[in-house]
Amino acid sequence: MSLLVVGSIALDDVTTRHGRKSGVLGGSCSYFSLAASNFTDVRMVGVVGEDFPEEYVRLFEDRGIDLTGLERRSGKTFFWRGEYTEDFSSRTSLQTDLNVFAEFDPQLPESYTNSDFVFLANIHPQLQLRVLEQCSPKFVAADTMKLWIDTELDALKEVISRVNLVTVNDLEVRLISGEDNLVRGVKKILDMGPDYVILKKGEHGAMLVGSDVEFFAPAVPLDDFRDPTGAGDTFAGGFMGHLASRGGNNPTLMKSAMFYGTIMASFTVEDFSVERLIQATERDIMNRYQRLLRLTQL
Amino acid sequence: MSLLVVGSIALDDVTTRHGRKSGVLGGSCSYFSLAASNFTDVRMVGVVGEDFPEEYVRLFEDRGIDLTGLERRSGKTFFWRGEYTEDFSSRTSLQTDLNVFAEFDPQLPESYTNSDFVFLANIHPQLQLRVLEQCSPKFVAADTMKLWIDTELDALKEVISRVNLVTVNDLEVRLISGEDNLVRGVKKILDMGPDYVILKKGEHGAMLVGSDVEFFAPAVPLDDFRDPTGAGDTFAGGFMGHLASRGGNNPTLMKSAMFYGTIMASFTVEDFSVERLIQATERDIMNRYQRLLRLTQL
Repeated sequence: MSLLVVGSIALDDVTTRHGRKSGVLGGSCSYFSLAASNFTDVRMVGVVGEDFPEEYVRLFEDRGIDLTGLERRSGKTFFWRGEYTEDFSSRTSLQTDLNVFAEFDPQLPESYTNSDFVFLANIHPQLQLRVLEQCSPKFVAADTMKLWIDTELDALKEVISRVNLVTVNDLEVRLISGEDNLVRGVKKILDMGPDYVILKKGEHGAMLVGSDVEFFAPAVPLDDFRDPTGAGDTFAGGFMGHLASRGGNNPTLMKSAMFYGTIMASFTVEDFSVERLIQATERDIMNRYQRLLRLTQL
Repeated sequence: MSLLVVGSIALDDVTTRHGRKSGVLGGSCSYFSLAASNFTDVRMVGVVGEDFPEEYVRLFEDRGIDLTGLERRSGKTFFWRGEYTEDFSSRTSLQTDLNVFAEFDPQLPESYTNSDFVFLANIHPQLQLRVLEQCSPKFVAADTMKLWIDTELDALKEVISRVNLVTVNDLEVRLISGEDNLVRGVKKILDMGPDYVILKKGEHGAMLVGSDVEFFAPAVPLDDFRDPTGAGDTFAGGFMGHLASRGGNNPTLMKSAMFYGTIMASFTVEDFSVERLIQATERDIMNRYQRLLRLTQL
């Protein structure tokens, strides 16, 4: 079934203990759509500037990603420069130039309005709501971040009440719910309306909680780890891509989707930007699925 | 089959955000043996002073724990006072009085020398080696801590080379192996001789790695968490107790043992000292086993 993603497309400048990469592809939309394109057809809504390299456009096209909703504006593409600490426990944003993304106002092309699965990546909650007004999907997931919890909590709560799934990290659970304990915090978010919450714990895995399912997926153990940027959006891409490819969201599908999300994220963090992610073959994905089975099944 | 534990027995004074408890039962031997006693007969080697409460002796006896190897010396019992930070991310040892434990020199009673399974809790590595000289077990596991890595690395490496299983946390892996990356660090420890390593990650679960098995067990999600003291030793007790009760250590048994270790630890952290652990019934254990199955099995 059709899968729509609305989010950011960026040019990143990232420094980690393994080096620095400048002008590389970033943004939630990019990671999500490239990950999801391994499973299903993806429709993208986003905006780029005149400086956006043609090679990245071709990368999306080669993956069969529908770019009807990709707006090209005069001006520069959203730019982010950041640096991770030695142990990857935190990162500092050194420069954030919204550029053309500052006036992003997502318009769904007519051909996108029948999308069955929708991922609202981390953008202003009012924009997330505007997307929902333009379609009637079967299943919607939304991501968010601390900035919107701090500044747009009412709009964010409206989003949370209107989607099927919310993806959050531990800090976001605590801030949204006011609960220190994550189990109680996730329950409070479920009480706000969504059917499911995915708690993203980075190297410690991810947990899906809903009324009919509770499932934990450990991260794939990696002996190389270079850049965590985009891991969460990649996870969402693998997760939603699998659901959309199967056209449903029953507990069994949601569990295997947790594994596919985990697997796609494991590729992303092995190198900068989308470098390793776009090299992942179907065989690579299946090998890591088998690895997760061995790691978790009795 | 018979299961022997050698370790500390302490009286603790613990402060967490949930309050303070003084003079309560602590020590690796106590947590391990109480957890393991749910699965098999346990033999204990340890030392206590004249102040050790009779009620704790009866607690061990009521669990069928063999106390032939429990030495009572004139003097005071090992005393530890500590405080955890608000978020439980670290703890400060405020007072450590070794007392009678300072001269602990483990002597196995004749009736213990045929023990099939042995757990060498966190004591001086030279003492761990001395225990190994007194028996010929089928399967031995050893725990350690930063102090011995810093001060007795050669003896510790000798222990590591002579046991089947080593239990370590992330810091210990990094210190022993010199590797930042945990996957590579665990491999380096395996190269030192043991068949298996269990990486303990606290609230983030535990991972078993060996040449014939790799298995991850997530922690039981808890909405109440009061005191993490003893969680690692309790884990070891559930793990080794299960192996000893089945008399083997094939990969299938090791995987379910990871679940039983996780489950017993989940009781310990729900209250101070061994208060919740000793209330856990067979039904409670089975319920949490079912919970872990739901949480992990596709």
